[in-house]
Amino acid sequence: MNGNRFGRLFQVTTFGESHGEAMGCTISGCPAGLELSEEDIQADLDRRKPGQSMITTSRGEPDDVSIKSGIQDGYTTGTPIGLVIQNKDARSGKYEPFITAPRPSHGDFTYSAKFGTRNWGGGGRSSARETVNWVAAGAIAKKLLAREGVELKAHVNQIGDVEAPEVSFEEMLEHSEENDVRCVHPETADEMQALIEEYQEEGDSIGGSIYFEAQGVPVGLGAPRFDSLSARLGQAMMAVPATTAFEFGLGTEAAEWTGKDRNDDWEFDEEGNPTPVENDHGGIQGGISSGEPIYGEVTLHAPTSIPKSQQTADWETGELKEEKVIGRHDPVLPPRGVPVVEAMLALTLVDFMLLSGRLNPDRVDDQPGEYDTDYHPSNPQNE
Amino acid sequence: MNGNRFGRLFQVTTFGESHGEAMGCTISGCPAGLELSEEDIQADLDRRKPGQSMITTSRGEPDDVSIKSGIQDGYTTGTPIGLVIQNKDARSGKYEPFITAPRPSHGDFTYSAKFGTRNWGGGGRSSARETVNWVAAGAIAKKLLAREGVELKAHVNQIGDVEAPEVSFEEMLEHSEENDVRCVHPETADEMQALIEEYQEEGDSIGGSIYFEAQGVPVGLGAPRFDSLSARLGQAMMAVPATTAFEFGLGTEAAEWTGKDRNDDWEFDEEGNPTPVENDHGGIQGGISSGEPIYGEVTLHAPTSIPKSQQTADWETGELKEEKVIGRHDPVLPPRGVPVVEAMLALTLVDFMLLSGRLNPDRVDDQPGEYDTDYHPSNPQNE
Amino acid sequence: MNGNRFGRLFQVTTFGESHGEAMGCTISGCPAGLELSEEDIQADLDRRKPGQSMITTSRGEPDDVSIKSGIQDGYTTGTPIGLVIQNKDARSGKYEPFITAPRPSHGDFTYSAKFGTRNWGGGGRSSARETVNWVAAGAIAKKLLAREGVELKAHVNQIGDVEAPEVSFEEMLEHSEENDVRCVHPETADEMQALIEEYQEEGDSIGGSIYFEAQGVPVGLGAPRFDSLSARLGQAMMAVPATTAFEFGLGTEAAEWTGKDRNDDWEFDEEGNPTPVENDHGGIQGGISSGEPIYGEVTLHAPTSIPKSQQTADWETGELKEEKVIGRHDPVLPPRGVPVVEAMLALTLVDFMLLSGRLNPDRVDDQPGEYDTDYHPSNPQNE
Amino acid sequence: MNGNRFGRLFQVTTFGESHGEAMGCTISGCPAGLELSEEDIQADLDRRKPGQSMITTSRGEPDDVSIKSGIQDGYTTGTPIGLVIQNKDARSGKYEPFITAPRPSHGDFTYSAKFGTRNWGGGGRSSARETVNWVAAGAIAKKLLAREGVELKAHVNQIGDVEAPEVSFEEMLEHSEENDVRCVHPETADEMQALIEEYQEEGDSIGGSIYFEAQGVPVGLGAPRFDSLSARLGQAMMAVPATTAFEFGLGTEAAEWTGKDRNDDWEFDEEGNPTPVENDHGGIQGGISSGEPIYGEVTLHAPTSIPKSQQTADWETGELKEEKVIGRHDPVLPPRGVPVVEAMLALTLVDFMLLSGRLNPDRVDDQPGEYDTDYHPSNPQNE
Repeated sequence: MNGNRFGRLFQVTTFGESHGEAMGCTISGCPAGLELSEEDIQADLDRRKPGQSMITTSRGEPDDVSIKSGIQDGYTTGTPIGLVIQNKDARSGKYEPFITAPRPSHGDFTYSAKFGTRNWGGGGRSSARETVNWVAAGAIAKKLLAREGVELKAHVNQIGDVEAPEVSFEEMLEHSEENDVRCVHPETADEMQALIEEYQEEGDSIGGSIYFEAQGVPVGLGAPRFDSLSARLGQAMMAVPATTAFEFGLGTEAAEWTGKDRNDDWEFDEEGNPTPVENDHGGIQGGISSGEPIYGEVTLHAPTSIPKSQQTADWETGELKEEKVIGRHDPVLPPRGVPVVEAMLALTLVDFMLLSGRLNPDRVDDQPGEYDTDYHPSNPQNE
Repeated sequence: MNGNRFGRLFQVTTFGESHGEAMGCTISGCPAGLELSEEDIQADLDRRKPGQSMITTSRGEPDDVSIKSGIQDGYTTGTPIGLVIQNKDARSGKYEPFITAPRPSHGDFTYSAKFGTRNWGGGGRSSARETVNWVAAGAIAKKLLAREGVELKAHVNQIGDVEAPEVSFEEMLEHSEENDVRCVHPETADEMQALIEEYQEEGDSIGGSIYFEAQGVPVGLGAPRFDSLSARLGQAMMAVPATTAFEFGLGTEAAEWTGKDRNDDWEFDEEGNPTPVENDHGGIQGGISSGEPIYGEVTLHAPTSIPKSQQTADWETGELKEEKVIGRHDPVLPPRGVPVVEAMLALTLVDFMLLSGRLNPDRVDDQPGEYDTDYHPSNPQNE
Repeated sequence: MNGNRFGRLFQVTTFGESHGEAMGCTISGCPAGLELSEEDIQADLDRRKPGQSMITTSRGEPDDVSIKSGIQDGYTTGTPIGLVIQNKDARSGKYEPFITAPRPSHGDFTYSAKFGTRNWGGGGRSSARETVNWVAAGAIAKKLLAREGVELKAHVNQIGDVEAPEVSFEEMLEHSEENDVRCVHPETADEMQALIEEYQEEGDSIGGSIYFEAQGVPVGLGAPRFDSLSARLGQAMMAVPATTAFEFGLGTEAAEWTGKDRNDDWEFDEEGNPTPVENDHGGIQGGISSGEPIYGEVTLHAPTSIPKSQQTADWETGELKEEKVIGRHDPVLPPRGVPVVEAMLALTLVDFMLLSGRLNPDRVDDQPGEYDTDYHPSNPQNE
Repeated sequence: MNGNRFGRLFQVTTFGESHGEAMGCTISGCPAGLELSEEDIQADLDRRKPGQSMITTSRGEPDDVSIKSGIQDGYTTGTPIGLVIQNKDARSGKYEPFITAPRPSHGDFTYSAKFGTRNWGGGGRSSARETVNWVAAGAIAKKLLAREGVELKAHVNQIGDVEAPEVSFEEMLEHSEENDVRCVHPETADEMQALIEEYQEEGDSIGGSIYFEAQGVPVGLGAPRFDSLSARLGQAMMAVPATTAFEFGLGTEAAEWTGKDRNDDWEFDEEGNPTPVENDHGGIQGGISSGEPIYGEVTLHAPTSIPKSQQTADWETGELKEEKVIGRHDPVLPPRGVPVVEAMLALTLVDFMLLSGRLNPDRVDDQPGEYDTDYHPSNPQNE
């Protein structure tokens, strides 16, 4: 209820503030027997970390993850995985003007109003720095999903008014890391980069959106009604900092489509099972996966911390004042948001895999409920 | 996990299939002392019920709600409220062609794939008929919110390519029930009506969207991160049948706004507290309410059950066939979806009111934790 | 949080007051494909129902259960099962003296203090009548467990100072329904019966205890720490009305045993797997099942509603008064508590079976995650 | 579901294995504005830590707690509190004989059977070392409760067949830390000490029990049915490692009491509210607190790790063998269990305080829902 837990069977519980001592999370419900090292997690953290390019904040955080529990001899043990990531480059001084005079459209005011206090350095708990935990947990979820043949990927498909053309999943897998913007389409990426730099130079920032897609999701994943795949994805994605819209399938365009046009007729696949002719339904029907790719889009508004002068109201002095937010901030969010969106997609899907019994909640290598004394990676003799 | 429960402190647990014997839900966590009668609930059920106009299904359901528990002498007792609504006009025969040959883009196939079976009459559990439970529970949530000064309303702001101009909250309160389309703007409503009838005559259906707004939401409601107001609204709204997009504040448009333009400066309100100059942030900052109106939009795709001929694949016979869905169906969803969206908004907000301690979880009339033997509406002498 | 929900994957949500219109519950998370009829549930309800013998309340309730949803062609569909049981013989008049003058040691005062009101007829929500819902849900849990080879049974092993000798599980299965006391040992049952009648004649009541046992529980069920089998059984059993103690294995006697005596050495079973030589550990080690029978005991205090005169304090008049509780009440609880304890044991175990993936959460007949269009009990052609 | 989370509004999520790198927990739902330092937590950790006397394990762990988040200027911020405790004195070597040959009645076999692996050093996740997290979280809960006038305490009231006479709450507060056994009654403590040393010398261990009591619990705390105070205490206490019985009020003795004897008549307190004449009901009626002290008892079996030779079955070699458990182990659990039982009592009660709205979930210093910009301990000017 405190907002720091995600998931039902695969649960992530996080802690940490932007300028606190450390970030961390506990993953509960990861089955035993998954080969897992800090490197597996680090790869995704590096995609999210600050300072990776000219269009991200210059804060210098290595974001080295340390696994504190839940691993034996390189494999998960089925017990909680504790992760800690030290904060190393926090400089809170520049936030002092905003202690009692909230930054426009940031969480400064609402956190203080709710809690009567807040950790103000770097945005504290409200900072997107917290998503470092999500990406760490998401990396584990991705590893579990990959074993089951589920692949997922995101890329930046819009910055300001620059939109990318449609790209294939294969292109996404291959090209999404090739430029700083994380847009699969190289020409569009160049345009986006130019646009971002333009706003950056003006001391402003700009919004954008991220397209995501998952393939290999088995038929029948999800649940009716309140826990539908679309509802749980909705929660997951709307939790991503700065998100103002979540769409799947046709998204907002569906308002203009007729039933006949949007409906996907049925045919048979090679194994003789019904399969939709097209995928205007976005891989989800009645809240449950159809076996087609699940795809959608997340809109992120422009970063609120900008060097341009803005008006704030100091509740301590009772005075209005003009302030510039001087810290180190991103001029645009989607490029670093890509691994965050992927993480939330992965966490949502792996949870449903466990809920459907497709993943053995106790151990990955066996059928659910099997009991097999032969298999013991914790046994040194087995190594 | 079964998809039939919504809410954390104010919980709704539902049951029922479209052509089953009855629909029903249990409301847990409603504080004691709220005056409540079946009429309070019926009013919203009547806005949702079938057969209310030419552009809704002709199924004849009175949707009379019966309160089975949780009320004493006209007031809630703090214990679970059991509601039952009989199904009276179910005619399953017309669904027989689809038992093993799924309707395009409906939940027929995915339910069968997940459960190995399904209640096929009228869509069974996957039917939007289930939202009768949501609206019933939502009516109670609205009554609680009204006591705390929170008002909310929705209306249809788009059907096909016909969009309504912006309307004020006051107009919504006053005019949203004045036409069958439930669009506050009369001329647009006429256009929408004409468009719907056109598709209806062709045996087709059309999509649309619903705008919602809540006023009087206190400052500081919500939670950081995964349980932010926006994340929980995201889940709530994406659970509404046929939803393909959820937006709040600027929604998808935020992609094109700069930080400077979207950021809302601060000024002081009459009591000397900081308040945003505008509300481009949609009433939520850092996942927590700012005191400004919360507004947004939900896109609903066109109904999938249409009388036009479509191709389906019969997994029993292995044959492709052309079928028309003959039952009684809506040609468009938003008009009846308005009370459903309001219900989900109300359920989400009342839950946060309880979670924040603003509503006494035990009894509405007192400060939380107070203990007062004088107040006993269950005492006949007090009547 | 409202106290009317039990279970994590197999969830029961209840409503109803002793003298309200109806009792009811919704079962969420029961897999599809289980053959289920009202008769399956009725059998256990009849064991719990009032008026079944001279030593139970004379209230005349047939306790006929009606299934409102979740069943198609005699099989569960995987969607919520709604059950309703009408109350037919409520006579609230005799409770009027206690509206503002609480019965000693009943929930009258605490409910009123918490909620500022209460349904006072027959104890309202605090009445043990509510366990009719538990037994109904438990009957479904038992059917699921039986498919997996898990059997469970309870019997009355103590009334006042009359204790039954140890009995075997086979004797429990065979003889527990042979007398009104529900004690497997016939001579002890006679003694108990005589003792109960003695107190009944005096206008008093007496306590007792129930022994329970489950066999066939697979190795490895449960979870570490807070969700251990023993912790979850503790919650389940301590929820049984009037319970003051829960024990498993050696229970309170374990205080006097040494480690050497209580520890159970290991040997090999026929399949070459380690198995404990004895079962002083009660079938649970480290919170997880060992494969040995799980057994324990629940103590129920004497019914508080007795015809003997007792002192109460009327908060309306400010006067002390002597009152006799005249309604129709049980002189002892364990005989009717036996099916309630079995129900809570079954609900706890079936939940762990689902959590461990041993039961396919989607459908009972298949391996988790399998997708098989051939199996469709909802298809009339298959019948 | 993974067993590492306790609580509903005040949630503790733990990680760590006995011989892993670190133990840790995240506390979610602690209101803002509570003064809190590492010293507050350390005091209770020191009561639980190993090596504190001759009758505890000689493992040398300072158990220094480090707060990683959730505190600003010495006060809680309402956001998650991350705690980490390094493991410093782990010597796993002595556990090698038991990797594939489980210790009798420990969790070795069941963990391996469930997960197909386990962290075997020192018992890994199944070790009572994990309760260091519980005690840390419990210390915060106690501080919150103390503000509301709720006090609680536990002491050892039985070791083997040596039982302590009844002691008053005041004696418990004053004397429970005066001897190594943590028994309030000095003569009994001496007897207990002698008995423990006797078993210790023999290479054996012995069971015992802990009495707990809470005073100042407000009237009306708890919930009906499944979430009753007794049910939730049942779960909490049965989660304590080695617990085999939980009793409250008369406990198992209630079986022999009549209704007339056990029932507590009502009188008026000084403020004219009904109050029970006695407290045979243990402070809980109908699952809800009566305002009387809540008291009960927890039985802990003898430690299973003993230096005496025992038979185990090696599933790798298929051979039976005799082994002594050589590590550093406690000969008896209750003395170090006292702070653990207190922690679980505190965590349960604070959760109910939040659920009842008696504690403002957002900030301790204000009425729930109040919004007050004056109060800002995070504002350096306020210091």
